[in-house]
Amino acid sequence: VVLPERDVVLEERRSRVDSDPAAYLREMMDAALYLNHPYRIPVIGWEHEIARLTTADAIGFYKSWYGPDNAVLAISGDVTAAEVRPLAERYYGVIPPVGAKDRVRVEEPTHYAARRIELRHRRVRQPSVTIEYLAPSYARGASEHAYALEVLSEVMGGAATSRLYRGLVVEEGVASSAGAFYSPDELDLTQFGFYGSPLPGGDVAEVEAAIRAEIARVLEAGVSDEEVERAKQRMMASVVYALDSVSAPARIFGSALTSGRTIEDVEAWPERIGAVTAEQVNAAARAVLVDRNSVTGLLLPDSTS
Amino acid sequence: VVLPERDVVLEERRSRVDSDPAAYLREMMDAALYLNHPYRIPVIGWEHEIARLTTADAIGFYKSWYGPDNAVLAISGDVTAAEVRPLAERYYGVIPPVGAKDRVRVEEPTHYAARRIELRHRRVRQPSVTIEYLAPSYARGASEHAYALEVLSEVMGGAATSRLYRGLVVEEGVASSAGAFYSPDELDLTQFGFYGSPLPGGDVAEVEAAIRAEIARVLEAGVSDEEVERAKQRMMASVVYALDSVSAPARIFGSALTSGRTIEDVEAWPERIGAVTAEQVNAAARAVLVDRNSVTGLLLPDSTS
Repeated sequence: VVLPERDVVLEERRSRVDSDPAAYLREMMDAALYLNHPYRIPVIGWEHEIARLTTADAIGFYKSWYGPDNAVLAISGDVTAAEVRPLAERYYGVIPPVGAKDRVRVEEPTHYAARRIELRHRRVRQPSVTIEYLAPSYARGASEHAYALEVLSEVMGGAATSRLYRGLVVEEGVASSAGAFYSPDELDLTQFGFYGSPLPGGDVAEVEAAIRAEIARVLEAGVSDEEVERAKQRMMASVVYALDSVSAPARIFGSALTSGRTIEDVEAWPERIGAVTAEQVNAAARAVLVDRNSVTGLLLPDSTS
Repeated sequence: VVLPERDVVLEERRSRVDSDPAAYLREMMDAALYLNHPYRIPVIGWEHEIARLTTADAIGFYKSWYGPDNAVLAISGDVTAAEVRPLAERYYGVIPPVGAKDRVRVEEPTHYAARRIELRHRRVRQPSVTIEYLAPSYARGASEHAYALEVLSEVMGGAATSRLYRGLVVEEGVASSAGAFYSPDELDLTQFGFYGSPLPGGDVAEVEAAIRAEIARVLEAGVSDEEVERAKQRMMASVVYALDSVSAPARIFGSALTSGRTIEDVEAWPERIGAVTAEQVNAAARAVLVDRNSVTGLLLPDSTS
C-alpha cells in the first residue's frame, strides 16, 4: 500500500518544511553549499518529486537496498552476542541478499566564491545568521583534520564558556544565542558552521559581524593549549553521558558502520580526541575556514511577504 | 584514441575557465540558480570528472547517443532537398540507429530565497554585476510568456535606445555597459537576466542599484505600447540580417528541432513576436522577475588574492 504512505511523506514534508521558514533556508543553503554532490538534495526529497513516486518506484528501491547484506543490526542492552545471534539469523537470515551495488560517490569541484542567501518571511520571529563551510568528514576530503575540527567546534561554540557564547552573548551582549556545529560522520564532505541570533529588537548584521570577527581572530591568533584541554575534557564527559543511555551506543556504532568507519574507530575516539594539539586545531581552522567554500544564510522577518 | 582527446578537453577547460574569473562566476551562478536541474553543471564538465573519463565512457556515450535517429541534419545553401537526400541516406543511412531512450527531465523545486555571489579575483579588470532569474523557455515552465519575455529583453536591454543603456550609460552615466539577456530555446527552464559594468574607477554597487531601480520601474509602471512596437521592429530587422547568412538558418532550425520545437514554430516566430502586446510584456515581467527565483553575481577586483 504505497500511495497512502506517499501522502504521509508529503504531509510530513509539509509540516516540517512548509510551516518553518528556517527549514526553507536550510534547504536553500544545502543546495548552495554543494555544487555537485547529492547532499544538496533534501533527504526527504523535493515535494514535486515525492508527489510523482509510484508503487513501482517504492518496490524497486526496496528490492535494490533492503537486504541483510546492506544492513547493520546494532543491539544494545543486557544481552550477549551468543544469545542474539540465533535470533538475528532466524529473523533476518531468511531475507534474500540484494547483492553489492557499484556506488558512484560524486565529488565537489573547486568552489570559486562564497554564496549568500537572505530569506525574508513574515513568519520569522527569531532572526538568525548561519555561516557554514564545506568541510572534511572522517571518510572524505582532508580527513586528517576531522578530530581537530571537532575540538575546534567545541572551543568555538560548544558550551557557555566557548568563544562565541562568551564573546557574543556574555561580553558584547549582541546575541541571545551563538554556537558552532560540525558532524564528521557523513560518508562525503560535511559542514563546519557558526550561528547566532540577535537579542529581541537587535540587529542580525551586528551578530554576523561579531561571528566574523571571532572567525578572523581564530585564524590569526589561533587557539590556546588551555582552551584545547578544556574542550577535550568537556568532549570526554559527553561520551560518558552518552554511554549512560541504552540506545545511544547502538546508534553510534550503527551510524559509524554505515558510513565507512569501524568498531575500532569508534572505540579509539577518546584517544584520538585526546591526542589533538592546539597546533592541529589551528591548522584545521586555516584549512577549512576558507571564504570561497562558504555559504552565509540570513533568516529575517518580512512584513511584506 | 580517447585519452589524448580527454587531455585536449581538459586543456580547453583550463584555457576557457581557469584563465577567466568571469567564467568562474558564471559556473558559480549556474550552480546557484538551478537547485535540482543539471543545467547547474557546466556543459564541458567539472575538471575532476573530465580527468577521470575513460575510453569505455567515451565509447558508451557514443553508442548511446550518436545515431542518425538521434540527430538532426540541417543543410543550408544553394541546393534542393531532392539533391541532398540521396547523399544523406548514403552517408548517414548506413549508421545503425541507437534506439529511443527514456529521458528523465528533472524539474526545479520551489525557490525560497534569492542568492548572491561576490567573486573577488586579482585578474578582474572590469567589475560587473549580473542579476538573473529562473525563467520559462519555449518548451518548459510558463511558456506562454516566452515571446513576451523576448520583447521585454529587447525593451530593457537590446539596443542603445533600450532602458538600461539609455538610463545607466547615457543619462545617469554610472555604467560603461548595461543590457539584458534571455534565450528561450533551452529544453528546460532558462534564465532572464540583466548586467552592467561601472565606468573605470566607478562603483559596481551604483550600477547594481540602478539596474534594480529599472527592474522596480518596469514592474511598477510597465512598458509602453510605443516601446514594444520599436522593440518588435528591431527584432524583425535582426531576423532579416540572420537570413543573410548561409549558416545561421541551418543553426536556427537545427537548434529548434533538437529542443522540442518544430519548423512551423520557427517560421511563425515573426508573427508570434508581432502579436505580443505591452500588457503581455508586463504580465511576463511580473511573473518572472521574482526576487526569490534570482541569483545576483558580482565580479570584483581583489588585490589580496
